[in-house]
Amino acid sequence: MSQKPSLAKGTRDFLPAQARKRQYIFRIIEEEFRNFGFQPLETPAMENLGTLEGKYGEEGDKLLFRILNSGDYLKDLSPDELQTGETQGITRKISEKGLRYDLTVPFARVVSMNRHLIHFPFKRYQIQPVWRADKPQRGRYREFYQCDADVVGSDSLMYEAELIQIYDRVFKKLGVPVQIAINHRSVLEGLAEQAGRPDLFMTMTLIIDKLDKIGAEAVKAELVRAGFEDDRAAWILDLLAGPDAALSEFEFNPRATTGVSALKKVREYASEAGLSNPLEFSPSLARGLSYYTGCILEVIPVGIKMGSLGGGGRYDNLTGVFGMPGVSGVGVSFGADRIYDVMEEQGLFPDGLDTPAQVLVICLDEESHRHGFGLASRLRAAGIRTDIYPEAAKLKKQFKHAEDLSIPFVLIIGEEERKKGLYPLKDQKTGAQSILTEAEIIRQMGMLSE
Amino acid sequence: MSQKPSLAKGTRDFLPAQARKRQYIFRIIEEEFRNFGFQPLETPAMENLGTLEGKYGEEGDKLLFRILNSGDYLKDLSPDELQTGETQGITRKISEKGLRYDLTVPFARVVSMNRHLIHFPFKRYQIQPVWRADKPQRGRYREFYQCDADVVGSDSLMYEAELIQIYDRVFKKLGVPVQIAINHRSVLEGLAEQAGRPDLFMTMTLIIDKLDKIGAEAVKAELVRAGFEDDRAAWILDLLAGPDAALSEFEFNPRATTGVSALKKVREYASEAGLSNPLEFSPSLARGLSYYTGCILEVIPVGIKMGSLGGGGRYDNLTGVFGMPGVSGVGVSFGADRIYDVMEEQGLFPDGLDTPAQVLVICLDEESHRHGFGLASRLRAAGIRTDIYPEAAKLKKQFKHAEDLSIPFVLIIGEEERKKGLYPLKDQKTGAQSILTEAEIIRQMGMLSE
Repeated sequence: MSQKPSLAKGTRDFLPAQARKRQYIFRIIEEEFRNFGFQPLETPAMENLGTLEGKYGEEGDKLLFRILNSGDYLKDLSPDELQTGETQGITRKISEKGLRYDLTVPFARVVSMNRHLIHFPFKRYQIQPVWRADKPQRGRYREFYQCDADVVGSDSLMYEAELIQIYDRVFKKLGVPVQIAINHRSVLEGLAEQAGRPDLFMTMTLIIDKLDKIGAEAVKAELVRAGFEDDRAAWILDLLAGPDAALSEFEFNPRATTGVSALKKVREYASEAGLSNPLEFSPSLARGLSYYTGCILEVIPVGIKMGSLGGGGRYDNLTGVFGMPGVSGVGVSFGADRIYDVMEEQGLFPDGLDTPAQVLVICLDEESHRHGFGLASRLRAAGIRTDIYPEAAKLKKQFKHAEDLSIPFVLIIGEEERKKGLYPLKDQKTGAQSILTEAEIIRQMGMLSE
Repeated sequence: MSQKPSLAKGTRDFLPAQARKRQYIFRIIEEEFRNFGFQPLETPAMENLGTLEGKYGEEGDKLLFRILNSGDYLKDLSPDELQTGETQGITRKISEKGLRYDLTVPFARVVSMNRHLIHFPFKRYQIQPVWRADKPQRGRYREFYQCDADVVGSDSLMYEAELIQIYDRVFKKLGVPVQIAINHRSVLEGLAEQAGRPDLFMTMTLIIDKLDKIGAEAVKAELVRAGFEDDRAAWILDLLAGPDAALSEFEFNPRATTGVSALKKVREYASEAGLSNPLEFSPSLARGLSYYTGCILEVIPVGIKMGSLGGGGRYDNLTGVFGMPGVSGVGVSFGADRIYDVMEEQGLFPDGLDTPAQVLVICLDEESHRHGFGLASRLRAAGIRTDIYPEAAKLKKQFKHAEDLSIPFVLIIGEEERKKGLYPLKDQKTGAQSILTEAEIIRQMGMLSE
C-alpha cells in the first residue's frame, strides 16, 4: 500500500523557514498597500473558462490549467465526437472551469459584476497564487504568488505617484536598494512618429527595449533593418543612449510632449512626498506595451544582478470585455519570488525569522513540567512565542531541540527553581545566563521581541 | 465581444469588507498558533493524484477536482479506449493532478518527503484553501479555507492541552463564548465492551453521537435495534445522559479507565494554564472516529444556534501510507466560515474593519492638493492609513467619498490651511472639528489606531 510521495511538477512546498520569510515580504507589502488606503480582494482559484479564455492571447490559452467537469463528464460527448480525437472540441465539452492565470482578469470580473456596489475610485490589492502550465525551469514555477495593487475609475496622475511611493517604501523597508524606472507610451509613440515611421511603433518599441541587453550598435542595426532611415535610427539612439536622458529633450513633437507633461506631473507629486530610491526617466522602457496606455513603471534592484522586481502602468478599458466600458486604471505588481531570491542572496532577512519560538522551557522532572506548562502559558499570553519540551526528558535532549530549532533562549525549571520562583534564562548564542523572576523574564523577552 | 461574467458554481469573491473581516479572524488564529511555537507550512494547490486518491474513501475520490493534463492530453489514449467511453479508465489517462482536498494529506506528504530535515516533535500550522466538488448549498462551498494546527512525533498529552488552550484563547479574543468538549476513543470502546457488544463499537458510537439531536429515548431504541440488550442500552443512556457526566463514573473497566486517565492528565495541564471557557467531558462525542485514536475535541458556541466551530483529536500513523510508519500526532482545525457567520450574526467584529482608511484628505484647490499629497504621505509614513481624494473636486463630492467608504475622519486643506499649517480635522460621526497642526494630527490619529 505504501507509496513514494512526490510534488506535482513545477510546484513547491514552503517549509517553515521559507514560509516565514515569504510571510515577512508579503506583510511588508500588504502593510504599505493598507497605509495607502488600498482594500483587500480575494477571488476563487477556479474561474469559468469563459472568463479566462481569450484574455491572454493564444499562448496564454494553452497555458491555462483546465479542470475536468465532475461526475460523468463524458456523458455529453457523442461516440462520434469522442472518436474524432479532436482535442479542442472535446476539451470544451469536458471542462468548464480553469485555474486563475493572473489577478487582473478576476479583478476585472469582480469590478464589472459589482459595479453598483463599488465606490470609485476603487483601490484594491490582491495577494494570491496563480497557475500557469508553463514548462517548469529554474525560477519558473507552475504555481506562484502575484501581489497586485490597482486603482480604477480615475485618471488622476496622483495615483502613479502613490504607486511609486509604495514601491519606494516597500523596498526601503525590505532593505533592497532599487531604481524605479518610468516611461510613457506617448513618448514612445512620439519617437516613432518623429523618426518618420509611426507605423513601426510596436516594432521600434520591442527593439529599443533590448538596449540594455544588446547595446546601442545592435539596436541601431535592428532599427534600420526594420525600416527606419539610417539617420533617424541614429537620432533615436542619441536620445536614448545619452548619458542623461533629460525629460525636456523629449518635447520634440506634440505627442511626445503629452507624455513628458504627464511624467513631469507624476514627478512633481513624487517629490512632494519625497522618495528614498531614485525615480529615473527611462525612455526605452516598454514593459507589456500592448496593455499599457499611459505611464509605464519598472523596479530594478541596484547593484544586484537580477531582473525587475516589479512593474506596472496605466491601462484603459479594464472591463470592456465584460460589458463595462471606459474603466481606466493604474496598477503595479511585486515579483515576490525574485524579491525573496535577492533578499536571500544578500542576507537581508532579519534575525529571528528562522525560529519558531523565542524561548524553550526545559523541565527537569514531571512536577516541574506541569509548573513549566503554566509558566509557558503566561509567557504566551504576554505575546512571547514560547515552546516547552513535551516531557521531562534528559537535559541534553531538550537542549538539542532548542539548537535544532534555533530557539535563542532556554529557560530551565527544576525543583529549586519552581520553589523559589527564580529561573535561569540562558542566551543560547552567548552562553550568558541570568536568574530571573517570571515578571523579569516577561519584561526582558518582551523587549527583545519588539 | 462583450460577455456577462459569472462566478464558478460554489465559489465566492470576498469583497473588501468581507476580506478584512476574514483577515481579522485568520490573524487572531495565526497569532495564537505562533505564540505556541507552531510553524507555518504552505503546500501547492495541485497534488499528484497518487497523493490524493484513496485517502478520503470512495466518496472523497469522487469529490476531487481533477486537472486536465496540458498539451495534447488525448495522445496517450488509443481510439479503442476512447470509444469505450469508460470514464474511470479515461480519467486516469488524461488527468494526473488534482486540487488539494484537505490540509492533512499534503501535510503527511511533506512530513514523509522531508523526514530527515524535520525535527520532531514538529508543530506546524497551515491556513490555505481546499477544494471539493460537492453539490453547492447554503453554507457549503467548493472552495473554502481550512486552518489546521498539528503536532507530530510525540504522544505527550501536553499537546492536547496546548491545543485546547489555543481554542480557548482564540475564541476569547474573537469574543465568541464557547464550550470545549472532550472525549477519548477508549472511553467509547470501554462502553461497548462493558455493554457486552465490543463488536458493535462503531455502530454504538454513531448512534450515541446523535444524542443531542434525537434525544435519549430514540437513542436507546436505536441501540436496542442495533443489538444491545435492553438493560445494557439503558445503562449506556444513564451514563451519557446523567446531568453531570463525571469522569470517574467511567472507570468501569480497564479500557475505559485508560481513556479516563488520559483525559484527567489533559485536564491537569489545562487547569495549570487556566482556561476562560469551560472544558467539558462529553462521553457521546465521536467526531471522525474512524480517524481519531485517542482524545477527541470539539468546540461549540454557547448560546448561539450553530454547529461546531472546530474540532480535532489524536491520530496514529499519519504517514504510513507514504512509507513512514509510527508517526502519531494530534491536531485541531478551525471552521473559519462558521466563525465568520457567528461573529457577523452577533455583531462581534470590531469597529473600523469596514473602512479602508482612518482619514481622508480633502483639498480645495490644485496647489493645496499637491501640499495635501505630501501631508498624506507623512501620515502614511507614521502608520496612519490615509487616503486622499485624487483631485480638488467639489467639496460635496469629496465628502461623499468619505461617507461611501465609511472613513471616520476628514482633513480639509485650502489656501489658508496650507499657509498657516493648521488643518481642520473633522470627526465624521460626531461632526466635531478640531484645528490641528500636522504633528497633532499624527499624534491623535496614531492614538486612535492603537
